[in-house]
Amino acid sequence: MKVVNLAEKLAMVDTHWDPKVVAAYNGNDIMVVKFRGAFPFHDHPDTDDFFLVIEGEVMLDVGDETHVLGPGELFVVPRGVRHRPRAEREAKVLLIEPKGTPNTGDPATAAKKERI
Amino acid sequence: MKVVNLAEKLAMVDTHWDPKVVAAYNGNDIMVVKFRGAFPFHDHPDTDDFFLVIEGEVMLDVGDETHVLGPGELFVVPRGVRHRPRAEREAKVLLIEPKGTPNTGDPATAAKKERI
Repeated sequence: MKVVNLAEKLAMVDTHWDPKVVAAYNGNDIMVVKFRGAFPFHDHPDTDDFFLVIEGEVMLDVGDETHVLGPGELFVVPRGVRHRPRAEREAKVLLIEPKGTPNTGDPATAAKKERI
Repeated sequence: MKVVNLAEKLAMVDTHWDPKVVAAYNGNDIMVVKFRGAFPFHDHPDTDDFFLVIEGEVMLDVGDETHVLGPGELFVVPRGVRHRPRAEREAKVLLIEPKGTPNTGDPATAAKKERI
């Protein structure tokens, strides 16, 4: 039980598309991640996917639409909906997914989600 | 499915200790709320309680300790742990709790948690 400062945690991250767990909530991983470039399209059949932009701009391609998120904006991609995040310049994001959810939708290609 | 701007949602709230639902994630309510003054001590026997400060300063009395959270800082109170938030001046907070969780720990005194 302690205060988690998101900026301090993000300063420890020097990779992209590599979420780091900073807290746990009811079996969910609370994560920080840096985005840059385009992530592969994927879906999560068993869970919604929560994105909150902390810094920068994120494009979320969801189905046939593109949603643009700036700081202080959040989006929940419903389970089973194909999506990909993109960022032209580095963006900093808070993610929430159930513990063990592969970020790519596929355990074979998923990031490790280490705790920091 | 749409982008939720937290500042816009918070601008619609003119009450304190009265969480408003802005999105849903896997059966959880994503809420914005304004704190001012001291909330009653309570606990949630069945769920963790997620706080992320958007603006202002929040004191979280948790058991015998007080944690001070500023903007961009989060705290998860584990299930069953007695706590109360306080704020000397108005603070703006993102909350996550399972849908239907009484904010006071008691359905008889809980806020309605309307969707905005």
